Amino acid sequence: MFKNIVIIGFGMIGSSIAQSVMKTNKTASIYAFDKSTTLKQRLKKANLSKIIPLKSLQEISQINVDLIIVCTPILQYSSIFKKIDSLNNNKFIVTDVGSTKYNIESLYLKNNFKFKFVPSHPIAGIEKSGLENGFFGLFDNRYNIICPIKNTPKSEINKIINFWQSLSMKIEIMTSKEHDHVLSLTSHLPHVISYSLVLTAMKKEKSLNSKLIKFSAGGFRDFTRVAGSDPEMWRDIFLANSKQIQKLTKNFISELKNFSNDLNVKNSKNLLIKLKKTKKVRDQIVKARQAGKFIPND
Amino acid sequence: MFKNIVIIGFGMIGSSIAQSVMKTNKTASIYAFDKSTTLKQRLKKANLSKIIPLKSLQEISQINVDLIIVCTPILQYSSIFKKIDSLNNNKFIVTDVGSTKYNIESLYLKNNFKFKFVPSHPIAGIEKSGLENGFFGLFDNRYNIICPIKNTPKSEINKIINFWQSLSMKIEIMTSKEHDHVLSLTSHLPHVISYSLVLTAMKKEKSLNSKLIKFSAGGFRDFTRVAGSDPEMWRDIFLANSKQIQKLTKNFISELKNFSNDLNVKNSKNLLIKLKKTKKVRDQIVKARQAGKFIPND
Repeated sequence: MFKNIVIIGFGMIGSSIAQSVMKTNKTASIYAFDKSTTLKQRLKKANLSKIIPLKSLQEISQINVDLIIVCTPILQYSSIFKKIDSLNNNKFIVTDVGSTKYNIESLYLKNNFKFKFVPSHPIAGIEKSGLENGFFGLFDNRYNIICPIKNTPKSEINKIINFWQSLSMKIEIMTSKEHDHVLSLTSHLPHVISYSLVLTAMKKEKSLNSKLIKFSAGGFRDFTRVAGSDPEMWRDIFLANSKQIQKLTKNFISELKNFSNDLNVKNSKNLLIKLKKTKKVRDQIVKARQAGKFIPND
Repeated sequence: MFKNIVIIGFGMIGSSIAQSVMKTNKTASIYAFDKSTTLKQRLKKANLSKIIPLKSLQEISQINVDLIIVCTPILQYSSIFKKIDSLNNNKFIVTDVGSTKYNIESLYLKNNFKFKFVPSHPIAGIEKSGLENGFFGLFDNRYNIICPIKNTPKSEINKIINFWQSLSMKIEIMTSKEHDHVLSLTSHLPHVISYSLVLTAMKKEKSLNSKLIKFSAGGFRDFTRVAGSDPEMWRDIFLANSKQIQKLTKNFISELKNFSNDLNVKNSKNLLIKLKKTKKVRDQIVKARQAGKFIPND
């Protein structure tokens, strides 16, 4: 069990981690570092006064930290990793929650950083950002994908596995490349679609006399949920995995074109077969539903 | 209040209508006609024995029917309308629940049918089909779009409005063209996307070693919900509104291309602005959320 945990980037995810640790590991001290200038007041207001705000990352040297969790948007990792490395402290392990993994691994290896690092990605989230929206239970029964960097000792990997398991997460091990491949399809492409659909709708909105939003229950609302995600976080994900995403978007566009071309009466039979086939896949997804209980907005 | 109601096509929607009428209009008799050969047994098993199964539409002549609700897939309307018209009965009003309206209006006008018809479209549904999945409450606080045909007496339109209102629905009046325009964006295009996304994923599934379904919480699951809809119903919708859908799919593809092209570091600032803008629209949709209470799969 870790005793002194620093969370860098204290938003919805960071706050949910803190609240989960507070329930499962009551003796741990939790420290938070965030760009927010009113962090102390916000923690108090959210009944999280037990969490100790840090004014700078240098303070880490003065406390006996054994775990650092990076929870910022991905493009901030470069400067944060440099600061962590300069702490020259071999006692702590670093993990993160970033939604892309290959670029982070490359950053770590290219810079030849010396701190211990076990990358991870908890597959859990809601569309609301900010520490105020964090909650205990976000990670319950969810997957966490761990992407160990080559030559990392098993003991270190196990420490991070145990940590996430103590938050009731299920663990899956992948290479960073495999992770980015899977997530480009299950998460990044859906986000591209969601944003593009809202942009399509915005251009039509005028001619629709505001009826778009009123009648969004027919499918549209589902598809725009992820467009409510944190913009900065998603800009970083899009840029970090842009090549994979662009390739996949191309594949998706050709499926759209095929599907659209098939919409004619001559093709009625084939169309029905296609729809039945996709329904089967959807039914499998429902069966594989990860969480046993209802999570807001999920 | 209608006293003798016939529901043609007794699936999830028809069954939900019946169950809602049974609670709000206890003296009404409800008759069901369906292609299912085991309708009687299925009604009994679903505790819906009060509903009287009809063996043919001709039987309508023998009962004092005042309302007929067509709940079949759209491409069956043509033969059903012919049969209804042949009943030569001026006592009843016909309404429907079809997801496209212009083609149905045209069908009615071109054939010069004589029965009274007030088209409607309740915007409510779940991805499961079959009478066993119908439930009381599906329509609660949902919109119903009524698309009156030219020269229909107000008294007839009002009867249908009152009927849906008695099922706790909110009413919106539109022309059939306007309806199809709005729904092509809020519902038909999202369905095209959902099916195409599943098809894209199916081609990748092999290389992903079944990891796709396991990690579908990151957005993918939301997007595939509607791909679980009834295949026959959706084939008919796609074919009935194909031109609108194809046009809109084209618009959507150009947004996708733009968005994908924007994914490079040079464009970081613009990308963030775009994401913030779309988030705002999504936030409006959340505010406009129609139903006050949680509905399964919605």
